[in-house]
Amino acid sequence: MNTYKAKIKITLRKGILDVQGKAVEQALHSMDYDIMENVRIGKYVELDITAQNDGQAEEFVREACDKIIANPIVEDYEIEILEQA
Amino acid sequence: MNTYKAKIKITLRKGILDVQGKAVEQALHSMDYDIMENVRIGKYVELDITAQNDGQAEEFVREACDKIIANPIVEDYEIEILEQA
Repeated sequence: MNTYKAKIKITLRKGILDVQGKAVEQALHSMDYDIMENVRIGKYVELDITAQNDGQAEEFVREACDKIIANPIVEDYEIEILEQA
Repeated sequence: MNTYKAKIKITLRKGILDVQGKAVEQALHSMDYDIMENVRIGKYVELDITAQNDGQAEEFVREACDKIIANPIVEDYEIEILEQA
């Protein structure tokens, strides 16, 4: 069995209103950072996982994302699996 | 002026207790995902920025992270700047 580091980017699906992102965008604009737009705020998760290989690690992380870590109805996620030194 | 996409991973600094991560880890273990450990939950931010070049874009995003987007006392962040098509 090997240990892997999983890095997961979770983003709100396109078309879903991102209230937190809008709030940060307004704060940026009020501080004269008008050059920044379309702020979207999601989650970033890291975890360690023990599995036989990276394919199995990704499969388990995908399952966990669908069930617990993300909300597949309104969120998309992207998984990266790295072998631990 | 060019438009860039900034992708920012914000993580709690090492040593700072991640209560949300612990909660997700317990939920995973209660669903028999004991193979997953050290769950850390941060933020993932995407935004569009107009700047002269990617170096300037990164500089502005770094400023905005220090002032508004992240909390540099307890969080680290990693910025990636991509040119928009």
